[in-house]
Amino acid sequence: MDPGPAGAAGPAEPGPGVRGAGPAAPASSLAVAAVLPAGGSGERMGVPTPKQFCRVLERPLISYTLQALERVCWIKDIVVSVTRENMEVMKDIIQKYQHERVSLVEAGVTRHRSIFNGLKALAEDQPDSKLSKPEVVIIHDAVRPFVEEDMLLKVATAAKEHGAAGAIRPLVSTVISPSADGCLDHSLERARHRASEMPQAFLYDVIYAAYQQCSDYDLEFGTECLQLALKYCHVKAKLVEGSPDLWKVTYKRDLYAAESIIKGMFGLVTLSSCVSEM
Amino acid sequence: MDPGPAGAAGPAEPGPGVRGAGPAAPASSLAVAAVLPAGGSGERMGVPTPKQFCRVLERPLISYTLQALERVCWIKDIVVSVTRENMEVMKDIIQKYQHERVSLVEAGVTRHRSIFNGLKALAEDQPDSKLSKPEVVIIHDAVRPFVEEDMLLKVATAAKEHGAAGAIRPLVSTVISPSADGCLDHSLERARHRASEMPQAFLYDVIYAAYQQCSDYDLEFGTECLQLALKYCHVKAKLVEGSPDLWKVTYKRDLYAAESIIKGMFGLVTLSSCVSEM
Repeated sequence: MDPGPAGAAGPAEPGPGVRGAGPAAPASSLAVAAVLPAGGSGERMGVPTPKQFCRVLERPLISYTLQALERVCWIKDIVVSVTRENMEVMKDIIQKYQHERVSLVEAGVTRHRSIFNGLKALAEDQPDSKLSKPEVVIIHDAVRPFVEEDMLLKVATAAKEHGAAGAIRPLVSTVISPSADGCLDHSLERARHRASEMPQAFLYDVIYAAYQQCSDYDLEFGTECLQLALKYCHVKAKLVEGSPDLWKVTYKRDLYAAESIIKGMFGLVTLSSCVSEM
Repeated sequence: MDPGPAGAAGPAEPGPGVRGAGPAAPASSLAVAAVLPAGGSGERMGVPTPKQFCRVLERPLISYTLQALERVCWIKDIVVSVTRENMEVMKDIIQKYQHERVSLVEAGVTRHRSIFNGLKALAEDQPDSKLSKPEVVIIHDAVRPFVEEDMLLKVATAAKEHGAAGAIRPLVSTVISPSADGCLDHSLERARHRASEMPQAFLYDVIYAAYQQCSDYDLEFGTECLQLALKYCHVKAKLVEGSPDLWKVTYKRDLYAAESIIKGMFGLVTLSSCVSEM
């Protein structure tokens, strides 16, 4: 791994997730852990490197996300699921950027299996584990580096009360259902639907029980943890309106955007050139 | 309006929508026009300028989109709907960037009303109009500058055959339906749904008839032209898989991405810094 520039190598400079003093820790001494599935292959990005390891200003994207979580003092443990072939890459990132509170587990072949592996590592019956079972677990994407403490607190608090909670955003496009012949069957009323985003949070016992009962089909093809809590534990997640910061780096263009935002945080670019008035 | 830099002012340099020789014109001499609703207020962008007028490398975003359409020789007329207060701004853009084949109409207060106004201008009963009624009309967003000729041809051809056609993309997030109390009611199976994008195309007589019958409620709150063709004319649109190029500039971060992509087209940036391998 190449060394990054001095300005981006240390964890001391300001980064994503830190704007102002931030909210206080949860009123109760809530035991919170986070699970980050990071086993994706990045096929939508169109580049050989999985997107969570793509570099933004010479630093891997996942390192910004870890930094955003580590700056939240009430998140005690962070468990990252990575594929076996990327385990050493991830260990190097942890060492180089001095990530603390991060444990690694092997990813599964699907997103749900990777999350389940992360949850298992937090179960109380794990021998020789340094991790302790949390009351609330936050699930977040490795490729959403701009999450704020305020949002993490909102979903954690709502999860404690409701059993499950997740961030939502308005839909950017209308969602449609195709028929088998590739024609429009029907379109959904945009105002009645939302995009389900991350972070999400759960009472640990709820989401762990859901995954333990989860069918192979759901583990293989499911995309939504909130749905598992609903289906297997009858817990209706509280939905929390999120800010535009919650976007997920999905396509190559999103790396450009992330780079510009992080440059802006470091004061390296001004925004006036592209959002000035006519 | 400030003059832009010499390098971005003329229509001669390469721009969005031109990569390689491009596909041939439709086999039949199809009469095609385009309608661009551009009456939006840009409230999601969080800036005072409507996003279609935000500058990317000193040039308003809508000018890139117009350029992408004008480079397609078989699109005969382009009708842009703009609000009364932006009419002069738009006229200046047309003059400065030498846009031809572009006519302006006044936008309505909603997207559907703006599109309808554009369609009315193309109707054959318009006195003193230089525009002629097309066989197929393409509807595109002013804030999707990277549309390729190939995609425009695909939807225009499919519209001629099926009456309506639209570009779709896979969903990036799971879509959920909230209950009245702000909790999860149900989540949609992501694989069975698609995001409806632009461009869309219609037999002119189909979409014009749909808008003429359209209820005030649909004109006010509807978001999907394909749905109008289905509801009022019983035409099931052909859905065409689109490329990631079809994304819509919605948030401020999208302006950063657009700027980097356009710089890349002009050879002003290399991509290696942010998508290099570890």
